[in-house]
Amino acid sequence: MKTLIRNGLVIPMTGKNDIRKADILIENNKISQIKDSVEGKFDKIIDADGSFILPSFVNAHTHLAMELMRNFKDDRENLQDWLSEIWPIEAKLNDRDIYWASKLGIAELIRNGCTTFADMYYHAWETAKACRESGIRGILGVAIIGDGKVAEKNFKEDATRIKDAADGYENIRIDAAPHAIYTCSDDAYVIAAEWAAENGALLNTHLSETQKEVDDCIRTKGEHPVSYLNRLGIFDRVKTYLAHGVFFDDAELEILRKKDVSIVHNPSSNAKLASGIAPIAKYRTNGMNIALGTDGASSNNNLNMINEMRLASMLSSVSTGKPSALSCYDVIRMATADGAKALGLDTRIGTLEEGKEADLLVMNMKKVNTCPVNDPYSAIVFSSDARNIEYVFSSGEMLLEKGTLTTLDEDEIMKNVTMQWNDILRR
Amino acid sequence: MKTLIRNGLVIPMTGKNDIRKADILIENNKISQIKDSVEGKFDKIIDADGSFILPSFVNAHTHLAMELMRNFKDDRENLQDWLSEIWPIEAKLNDRDIYWASKLGIAELIRNGCTTFADMYYHAWETAKACRESGIRGILGVAIIGDGKVAEKNFKEDATRIKDAADGYENIRIDAAPHAIYTCSDDAYVIAAEWAAENGALLNTHLSETQKEVDDCIRTKGEHPVSYLNRLGIFDRVKTYLAHGVFFDDAELEILRKKDVSIVHNPSSNAKLASGIAPIAKYRTNGMNIALGTDGASSNNNLNMINEMRLASMLSSVSTGKPSALSCYDVIRMATADGAKALGLDTRIGTLEEGKEADLLVMNMKKVNTCPVNDPYSAIVFSSDARNIEYVFSSGEMLLEKGTLTTLDEDEIMKNVTMQWNDILRR
Repeated sequence: MKTLIRNGLVIPMTGKNDIRKADILIENNKISQIKDSVEGKFDKIIDADGSFILPSFVNAHTHLAMELMRNFKDDRENLQDWLSEIWPIEAKLNDRDIYWASKLGIAELIRNGCTTFADMYYHAWETAKACRESGIRGILGVAIIGDGKVAEKNFKEDATRIKDAADGYENIRIDAAPHAIYTCSDDAYVIAAEWAAENGALLNTHLSETQKEVDDCIRTKGEHPVSYLNRLGIFDRVKTYLAHGVFFDDAELEILRKKDVSIVHNPSSNAKLASGIAPIAKYRTNGMNIALGTDGASSNNNLNMINEMRLASMLSSVSTGKPSALSCYDVIRMATADGAKALGLDTRIGTLEEGKEADLLVMNMKKVNTCPVNDPYSAIVFSSDARNIEYVFSSGEMLLEKGTLTTLDEDEIMKNVTMQWNDILRR
Repeated sequence: MKTLIRNGLVIPMTGKNDIRKADILIENNKISQIKDSVEGKFDKIIDADGSFILPSFVNAHTHLAMELMRNFKDDRENLQDWLSEIWPIEAKLNDRDIYWASKLGIAELIRNGCTTFADMYYHAWETAKACRESGIRGILGVAIIGDGKVAEKNFKEDATRIKDAADGYENIRIDAAPHAIYTCSDDAYVIAAEWAAENGALLNTHLSETQKEVDDCIRTKGEHPVSYLNRLGIFDRVKTYLAHGVFFDDAELEILRKKDVSIVHNPSSNAKLASGIAPIAKYRTNGMNIALGTDGASSNNNLNMINEMRLASMLSSVSTGKPSALSCYDVIRMATADGAKALGLDTRIGTLEEGKEADLLVMNMKKVNTCPVNDPYSAIVFSSDARNIEYVFSSGEMLLEKGTLTTLDEDEIMKNVTMQWNDILRR
């Protein structure tokens, strides 16, 4: 299968000045050529005149099936109050709920230009099935809340079920995902890190999301969250990405930088739940790799990486007083190349380069909200929205074609999600 | 002309608990009936099953024709640096530039569900013409930068030209718009207030946008911005709405509340230019009426009131630590009823009530980004985006029909704006 994307403005995210008008040839799952003009015979030609072509977005932290709880109990005052409403619902969820909610989440992600997501949730085998059926790339966590016994059980049972559900589909990876230091024991973390190291996986966990979490950690463990996980040897055992990271101090940053740990910034969730504003510009200046995530739809309440980019930029500008501290190019990096790096996928996706997998999107900028363009990076972050996204490719497969999903039936998905959700509320 | 909108969820914004399933009948320019079931013969029937019907948005502060400078010189560090890049461009603008840029802005506003905007810009007669041709409601300021002589000249010449361009079109009102206390003299403000009072107009000005503006005011005039304008007698002479208002102290709030002055919150612009976060929840607790605005597209960089609502909510939550201090219902009020009140239009628009003018929108919530809905107010603020907006009415005229603009040719507009902008850069 050969698909040519012709006449677009290629924004490869390999460097700020690498933007150029060029053709892109997709052969099977790869970008085989990027050059001024590609000649030959093709199965499909997309005219991208007036469009941007860029790496599709990497949503490096979400809880996909929380789509079910979108806008539910939305008036809570903080993370803990809100979790106390959410957990009783989560205890009732079944396979069918997760399957349809995952499909809904994937449909929303694709429409918003995202083809890779890092997930941490229950019944993840159903999310694996939804990934396989839709063609999206899923980094699925084996979620753990509890002690070492729970961790062992989940790695034995859940990891196997996820692998079976993937059924040979190559774009699923299974990571270890202990929830947080206030819900998991020391040995749960150690077992998770060991399992991940043995299985070529990464470790995905929440850390330093609220001041309360930090204070509690200091009070109960006598040290800051990063020191605690470092003392357990987590970062030495396995490549780790940390969601939220709102409150890291200089000593923690020093450890994280040395251990090559990435931070996933979740600006909407942190603002909405009044957790705080992570000082991302400072983290980046300290050499940290920063990815971007939506968190779950129930604390956001959408899965839209353009919204996250815009908010990340605005929060950084207003909190530092220095708009240049985090440029539009920087935030798009966070949503693409740096997200791929956080997930250990940077040799495969995250930039547009010959030989990389064809995970990319075509954004039609000939719309009233993006006219005139002037600065392309600003246009993406500040002016564009999902209406501009017309084509989305994942591993060379076209998942969105002229604004229509090719692998998913949205009406069927919405009907089933609504049915499941009404059923959950009655359980 | 009778248009029936059937089976929708009516969100009238008259009170938080007033949501109900009902039919809405539009007769000519008015909402003539809202009830469970309206029977009869109609010229047009819209099936709004699964849709929300709400007042269309009021953008209470913008500079419409700055669409031209969208994403232009976007890397400046603060308001003053940025203005120093923008002003030389503005000095070159001509009628034709403003006409096409205004049309672009109106197209963007309508697509984003907005049918009323308060504008402050040059060559406003061209914006008036664009309003008349498109059917949107424009509150057009006679812009003043300078002293009393400039003000007198502008009210004599510009106000007449705007009135002539409106050519009897009823949905234009001409307000007095002295730019700011750092660009206008005392007598410019007094003349503006007197002209407004004599002409049934309101006064629209920027105030307290940056800390520098406040500091300079205290240094040069010996008092805070609100005290200064109050001493000039502005608020006693004419109903006033103030854009930005980031730094009002308690004494200033007391004056504003007593004088019934409204504040227009511009969260994107204030965040993007690192001006600050206006403490809106506190202002509202003090009894202030707060409207919402996008500011110009060149400091935003879009004209999307849903983005403003979401950001207003998030900034309030994260800056106060108290999500409930500004609820989703509150921010939708700011974007509708309270915006109408700020502009003195609350007897005519801003809520859905029988007898009011039919300025409303239909938002299809059967989309993957708004499934399930759960809380309707949260769904609007946090989950919806312009993709959900399918029908928009202004004074009973349908300006957006199933996602298509009825009065404007977008391709023609974009072509002309691009041509004008390229020409401006060469001038």
